[in-house]
Amino acid sequence: MHRTLGVCYYPEHWPEDQWARDAALMVETGLSWVRIAEFAWARMEPAPDQFDWAWLDRAIETLGAAGLQVVLGTPTATPPRWMLDKYPDMLPVDAAGQVRKFGSRRHYDFSHLGYRGEARRIARLMAERYGSNPYVHAWQIDNEYDCHDTTLSYSSAATRGFQDWLAQTYQSIGALNRAWGNVFWSMDYDDFDQIALPNQTVTEPNPSHVLAFRQYSSDQVVAFNRAQAEEIRAYSAAPLIHNYMGRITSFDHWAVGRDLEIASWDSYPIGFLSDRIEGTAEEKQFYLRQGHPDNQAFHHDLYHAVGRGRMWVMEQQPGPVNWAPYNPAPLPGMARLWAWEAFAHGAETVCYFRWRQAPFAQEQNHAGLLRPDSQPAPALAEAATVAQEIADLPAVDRGQAPVALIFDYQSAWAWDTQPQGADFDMFRLGFAAYRALRRAGLSVDILAPDCADLSAYKLVFAPGLMTISDPLRAALSTYKGIALIGPRSDTKTDQLTIPSPMGPNLPGVDVTVALTESIPPSDAIALEEGGQFRHWFEHLEGSATVFGKTVSGQPAVMGGDHLRYLAGWPDDATFDRLVRALCAEAGVMTYDLPQGVRIKETSTHRFIFNYAPEPREWNGVTLAPAGVHWEEL
Amino acid sequence: MHRTLGVCYYPEHWPEDQWARDAALMVETGLSWVRIAEFAWARMEPAPDQFDWAWLDRAIETLGAAGLQVVLGTPTATPPRWMLDKYPDMLPVDAAGQVRKFGSRRHYDFSHLGYRGEARRIARLMAERYGSNPYVHAWQIDNEYDCHDTTLSYSSAATRGFQDWLAQTYQSIGALNRAWGNVFWSMDYDDFDQIALPNQTVTEPNPSHVLAFRQYSSDQVVAFNRAQAEEIRAYSAAPLIHNYMGRITSFDHWAVGRDLEIASWDSYPIGFLSDRIEGTAEEKQFYLRQGHPDNQAFHHDLYHAVGRGRMWVMEQQPGPVNWAPYNPAPLPGMARLWAWEAFAHGAETVCYFRWRQAPFAQEQNHAGLLRPDSQPAPALAEAATVAQEIADLPAVDRGQAPVALIFDYQSAWAWDTQPQGADFDMFRLGFAAYRALRRAGLSVDILAPDCADLSAYKLVFAPGLMTISDPLRAALSTYKGIALIGPRSDTKTDQLTIPSPMGPNLPGVDVTVALTESIPPSDAIALEEGGQFRHWFEHLEGSATVFGKTVSGQPAVMGGDHLRYLAGWPDDATFDRLVRALCAEAGVMTYDLPQGVRIKETSTHRFIFNYAPEPREWNGVTLAPAGVHWEEL
Amino acid sequence: MHRTLGVCYYPEHWPEDQWARDAALMVETGLSWVRIAEFAWARMEPAPDQFDWAWLDRAIETLGAAGLQVVLGTPTATPPRWMLDKYPDMLPVDAAGQVRKFGSRRHYDFSHLGYRGEARRIARLMAERYGSNPYVHAWQIDNEYDCHDTTLSYSSAATRGFQDWLAQTYQSIGALNRAWGNVFWSMDYDDFDQIALPNQTVTEPNPSHVLAFRQYSSDQVVAFNRAQAEEIRAYSAAPLIHNYMGRITSFDHWAVGRDLEIASWDSYPIGFLSDRIEGTAEEKQFYLRQGHPDNQAFHHDLYHAVGRGRMWVMEQQPGPVNWAPYNPAPLPGMARLWAWEAFAHGAETVCYFRWRQAPFAQEQNHAGLLRPDSQPAPALAEAATVAQEIADLPAVDRGQAPVALIFDYQSAWAWDTQPQGADFDMFRLGFAAYRALRRAGLSVDILAPDCADLSAYKLVFAPGLMTISDPLRAALSTYKGIALIGPRSDTKTDQLTIPSPMGPNLPGVDVTVALTESIPPSDAIALEEGGQFRHWFEHLEGSATVFGKTVSGQPAVMGGDHLRYLAGWPDDATFDRLVRALCAEAGVMTYDLPQGVRIKETSTHRFIFNYAPEPREWNGVTLAPAGVHWEEL
Repeated sequence: MHRTLGVCYYPEHWPEDQWARDAALMVETGLSWVRIAEFAWARMEPAPDQFDWAWLDRAIETLGAAGLQVVLGTPTATPPRWMLDKYPDMLPVDAAGQVRKFGSRRHYDFSHLGYRGEARRIARLMAERYGSNPYVHAWQIDNEYDCHDTTLSYSSAATRGFQDWLAQTYQSIGALNRAWGNVFWSMDYDDFDQIALPNQTVTEPNPSHVLAFRQYSSDQVVAFNRAQAEEIRAYSAAPLIHNYMGRITSFDHWAVGRDLEIASWDSYPIGFLSDRIEGTAEEKQFYLRQGHPDNQAFHHDLYHAVGRGRMWVMEQQPGPVNWAPYNPAPLPGMARLWAWEAFAHGAETVCYFRWRQAPFAQEQNHAGLLRPDSQPAPALAEAATVAQEIADLPAVDRGQAPVALIFDYQSAWAWDTQPQGADFDMFRLGFAAYRALRRAGLSVDILAPDCADLSAYKLVFAPGLMTISDPLRAALSTYKGIALIGPRSDTKTDQLTIPSPMGPNLPGVDVTVALTESIPPSDAIALEEGGQFRHWFEHLEGSATVFGKTVSGQPAVMGGDHLRYLAGWPDDATFDRLVRALCAEAGVMTYDLPQGVRIKETSTHRFIFNYAPEPREWNGVTLAPAGVHWEEL
Repeated sequence: MHRTLGVCYYPEHWPEDQWARDAALMVETGLSWVRIAEFAWARMEPAPDQFDWAWLDRAIETLGAAGLQVVLGTPTATPPRWMLDKYPDMLPVDAAGQVRKFGSRRHYDFSHLGYRGEARRIARLMAERYGSNPYVHAWQIDNEYDCHDTTLSYSSAATRGFQDWLAQTYQSIGALNRAWGNVFWSMDYDDFDQIALPNQTVTEPNPSHVLAFRQYSSDQVVAFNRAQAEEIRAYSAAPLIHNYMGRITSFDHWAVGRDLEIASWDSYPIGFLSDRIEGTAEEKQFYLRQGHPDNQAFHHDLYHAVGRGRMWVMEQQPGPVNWAPYNPAPLPGMARLWAWEAFAHGAETVCYFRWRQAPFAQEQNHAGLLRPDSQPAPALAEAATVAQEIADLPAVDRGQAPVALIFDYQSAWAWDTQPQGADFDMFRLGFAAYRALRRAGLSVDILAPDCADLSAYKLVFAPGLMTISDPLRAALSTYKGIALIGPRSDTKTDQLTIPSPMGPNLPGVDVTVALTESIPPSDAIALEEGGQFRHWFEHLEGSATVFGKTVSGQPAVMGGDHLRYLAGWPDDATFDRLVRALCAEAGVMTYDLPQGVRIKETSTHRFIFNYAPEPREWNGVTLAPAGVHWEEL
Repeated sequence: MHRTLGVCYYPEHWPEDQWARDAALMVETGLSWVRIAEFAWARMEPAPDQFDWAWLDRAIETLGAAGLQVVLGTPTATPPRWMLDKYPDMLPVDAAGQVRKFGSRRHYDFSHLGYRGEARRIARLMAERYGSNPYVHAWQIDNEYDCHDTTLSYSSAATRGFQDWLAQTYQSIGALNRAWGNVFWSMDYDDFDQIALPNQTVTEPNPSHVLAFRQYSSDQVVAFNRAQAEEIRAYSAAPLIHNYMGRITSFDHWAVGRDLEIASWDSYPIGFLSDRIEGTAEEKQFYLRQGHPDNQAFHHDLYHAVGRGRMWVMEQQPGPVNWAPYNPAPLPGMARLWAWEAFAHGAETVCYFRWRQAPFAQEQNHAGLLRPDSQPAPALAEAATVAQEIADLPAVDRGQAPVALIFDYQSAWAWDTQPQGADFDMFRLGFAAYRALRRAGLSVDILAPDCADLSAYKLVFAPGLMTISDPLRAALSTYKGIALIGPRSDTKTDQLTIPSPMGPNLPGVDVTVALTESIPPSDAIALEEGGQFRHWFEHLEGSATVFGKTVSGQPAVMGGDHLRYLAGWPDDATFDRLVRALCAEAGVMTYDLPQGVRIKETSTHRFIFNYAPEPREWNGVTLAPAGVHWEEL
């Protein structure tokens, strides 16, 4: 499949006589797609039920006529100011009970059914008008769910919604009290209407209470998205897309993804580096103008799975952004590298964000492909290069990965709720495993926790999986590769209580977590074969084979030929050793890569990326900083 | 006196058919006491005035019949959800004005008289029913006052109560204005009803205002406790106990203790280490799985005094807890060491918390003596060992200490209110002195600030004592040992203003604090004899003898043969030097102890404890890590 | 002009029979001025419209008769408690929406017109009574505007006031929407009454919205001050003064200053050092008991300009204060040095704060010239020394500085609103430039951003200037010295949007900021001539001459003979190099000063100050620690 490039554009920001010139230059640059309209509700409907579609008609016509395919966004992340007059209580409320006010974006509560109806209404109106427009080739619903921490809201609407959800889920209040263990501190409820949201309690609330609220809140995101999807589908055959942000775990992306055709995400490699990705100060300085070398790949692989095989980058950082603590410029070449890395991981389209830097409002210091004065910014030429390279290179596919990693959002909520160690974080654990696999040169598929078939993989990692779903348990029971499960896996019920018998309860493997320790950064559990566990260590018991020990003689890994349980959180060097040993055993080839070099193998090619700020040599290939190389396999 | 062991148990958490098996295993382990019921209000009174005592009758009968003595807890730390329907305003309010919601525990306001009446009512009902029960041998009132910072509440109830308290205390508003110096910033009040709580002022409130609120708030804890004590006493001759937490200074433990027969405390050596005890990162790593070697001893000694000679450990950590930032497992043997250390310091009983790890709710990751699946956790065998050793060893007493340390809660409030240096903290200062005494192998008695007799002690330390009480002043005026008073002692009035003449006003000693400096961590005041003052330094004047100087020639200690004033906060090495010099002068024997070794001498024995994670030798004795040794004196 | 000393005094704190003794000792010490009454509203008007002037009459009489000149303060920073009964909504509200309560000071909202009327009323009443009193020689209005962050209030009064201000400023809501770029995220308003204050938005609000609120809030301070000034002027010919605090940028001091005759400030060199001034830990330890050697000079120079040539120090730290994180004592001699430094920079009068340490309320741990027991504190003798030296020395003036620095408050608000890099701060940038000039021994004048004449200066620095005003642009267009403008200068409109053409738009110089980077502390931009840019770097383009480059070849400075644009934020060493090179080119003499030594040249003398805690030699002069030397030029 030939890959394509696009760009995000805001015709409402510019004089109309500029649109055609912009469109022509987009096409000349080699761009195929243009995303528009996702923040323009106030221009479409300046007052309740007073519509102005004409400008949008003309914008689509102008862009389409120039040869661009339009992704049309629903503007529900930015309800106009008049919406608050209809629904004064639609604003989200933070955990401290403070209303989050109008004046920026995402000022709505997913639980507010009145606003959900409004979102459905504007989506239907857009779909009616543009559902068969020949230039509209895809739809984006809303924009970056949860951005600015908006999944959780502690509003009256959320309270009522949560009480209803609990009533439907548990049916009887006694069942809820028993499921949550409310006897513990006389926390029993007499009625669902007594149950408040789990914020601002004197000390920590019941973790089952919190987990239920997390599940409820995720369900509202799914419902909000589905409401719009239903409306658009009634009028349009074009694929539906949402643009997820990176490293967000507050809602179940697998569930949202099931209602859409394509998963896209917004990739800001440098914006994320300093405070949204773990790493030492030295690493962050080394990758300052490139971004973390595994962050983009992880999200490509994750969203490729969320999109069931269809993935885009909807927003690609082109230069300095405005919202990170510090905002340096990318190394020359990175805007090209990031695009090619996305393609190698299966992206169909990469859209740069944005066409022209806006001279006003919140993002006026966020670079685009053009400067505010319409002069080219550095990334424009790189985009043009990529466009040319796409045309010259044979079609790229993603290929079949030999290794899989299971990633679960419910577990993320559980461990947020009950970290037990201050630095335990689900994303961090999953990403640590992923990084180790990548450092060994492996291509990785990320799987949902309800996957029923592992047969394509020689090796499967399942760290931090609160529970094992029935389909996965069935798949594991007949699995012929090696599955490394743990740490902190299958040791809780889906109510975040301790199961009986205590877990893990792996099919055919006698191993039990007898005792759990969280480990401060000053300490570690040394392993007999070298390396150490950090953060987390479980004392294992049972009759299963011991595959490795701590220096004090406790099991580090236990299990059988196919299913093994990992007792701790390995540090990077130990993860590297484990990956290489398991790959050797499972017959998966690994590589030695220099610092900053990463590879991705597709069915036909090997892509090599240099994230280092220095030249690198590998496998006979020399790569400049930000260099990309591909070769046929 | 022979010491005993016990355990905390929650029959309401488990199927009734389990109770007898649990009781039998407790007895088999050697436990004598079982504490129950302190969180079970919702099971005793599931709806207002609808009682279910039958299960509790059977639980007490089952445990008692098995040979256990019951400590029966009043459940007032966990009012049921229906209580909020009676008293919607009973919830505590934090300093930011946010209501602290239902959903965990301690969700009540000490100032709320309606809820205080409810607490009195349930205590009376329990005392009526169980006051003469042959198996109920002691009562616990409430649970861990102030846990989760619940002494101070900024509610309407507290506002009204505080205004009444001020009116009763000062009688006229003019007297209050003068006592507080409200003229300072035109802060005068015309009426007591105008006086708000001292939170959320534009800048810091008047320290006299804050201190009054701290005293008022402490008084409410005392009154709340006394209300229940009065009710139980009417029906039961068994001793009354409260289980204090460690390192809490928000209410006057001396005052609460006067209304009870026994002071107990909840000892979590590892849970406290990382963020509730000062120390370097290296020390915290060294003691990671043992706890700070002086923290338990300090609290044993403190609560032995609060209990006027009767002290228990009501909750003893048995394994990893769930609530510290990180929760590693204790070193094998520590559950034994901690118990023996408590006994050596005079504990009558040590109860492990809890019998079986709960599989649900907030503390599901908190270890017990049994695992959730009823298998033994590591501490069970250690408890059994202690039980056997108790039986084998001659009775232990506490003995008379040669040295005393005065510890005052009002001073803690004063210095919280007016730290003057960001790291000045009353507990920290008192504990620094205590640690130095312990490092020299000394047994220490902790005394209340109104103690009237010091004659049993050769050496008395009184650091940070805001005022000197009349009885103490009288005792000091005839004291024949050496009393080291200061720094920051007797330099304020009880209204937290500066006295005239300026202090200290020690009997027969001419010394005045002319000027005070707080010292940042980067700086120190070097002393002529070596070592330095840190944090705090007072410029002393007067005709008293100078016992030591700073290198710039200012007095470090001034006074006479018996009363001396210490001008600064010595660092550890300087405290060590001071302790040894004063002990030599006062005729008190000191010891050189290796790192991690601590001793406690009773009337008959010397106990030696090894808190190091390595073997230690001292005085011809070799101790393994977590080792305990006793020898007759 | 002969300089004078004074002191701050609170007759209402002391028995009346003490007043005459105090006054006599003040005069004996050599003090000429006494400031009184600025917190005494509750004593002047104990109940609404019930006045007690008698005590104040007697206090002024007593002080004046002793030979002292009175500065009479309006007490509007401390409205009495009864004021709240009249205006319950007059309290300020913080950004989290919390009311800031009565109980300290500055508990009023600058936007509250009712309270503004009360302030006007009490000022008029005082002016009527004392406007022609022969002992009242100056007035202080209010006290330390913005202290405790009180310029910004998020109250209902501020909301209404802001909406009115916006309506008056923009006239049409469409004009506002366009000026702010509200189209960006559908943030358009239909009416001014819809515009809330820019706090608590879901994510960052529109920077134009924030900047408007900052300008509005500053305008309210100006209006509040002007209201009182108008009243006093109607009755008194004495000069009007406000005592500004250091390092406050929340309101436009230039604008407030235009309504007053004299600018004074409150100088707390040690109080400010630890957490209000940047610097390494080593520097802060080095200057622990002296204060930062450039902080006082900067503020003297700034307020000399704000006062259009008339400047006082209204409060001079005499010993330890109570409000910094740590409060050590000054090095002996500093109370003298600080006074002489103020005089050398043009101060007419230096008043020590306060006469006698108060034994009660918030500042009881704040030193005075006397101790609470009326014994002399260390600074008393130093004040007497200064008084004697003033008498002995020929009159001091300030002289003409060869170098100017432009400092702008609106830019400070802009960069607070849009820092782009986490450590970008206007004061910090301006102060970095000032420090470099001082290290080179230069005397500096600070100029307002609307200055129209630069002809007195050979060198002008203008860092961080958001916009260039029309008068300044005119002055620059004919400037014959060297003006170094930038970084981050003239690159925004006064609405905080990006101008077209993009800036800077310097007269006759073709240079454009093509791209901007903020730089984390781990990174820096190395320069070809040595040194580096930190924090901030702008990529420059244009045909102007390049005066220096980065090692990667980008321009570091561009411009012409007279106007040059600086592309980054130089580190200290680079600033030193730039200053010396520009001085050499402009014909300004520079000096090499040892660490801690600073000089100030007046028309007739050179003053040399030793801020080091060690002796220093310079230019043949040996100075003890805290030493001051003057010599005729």
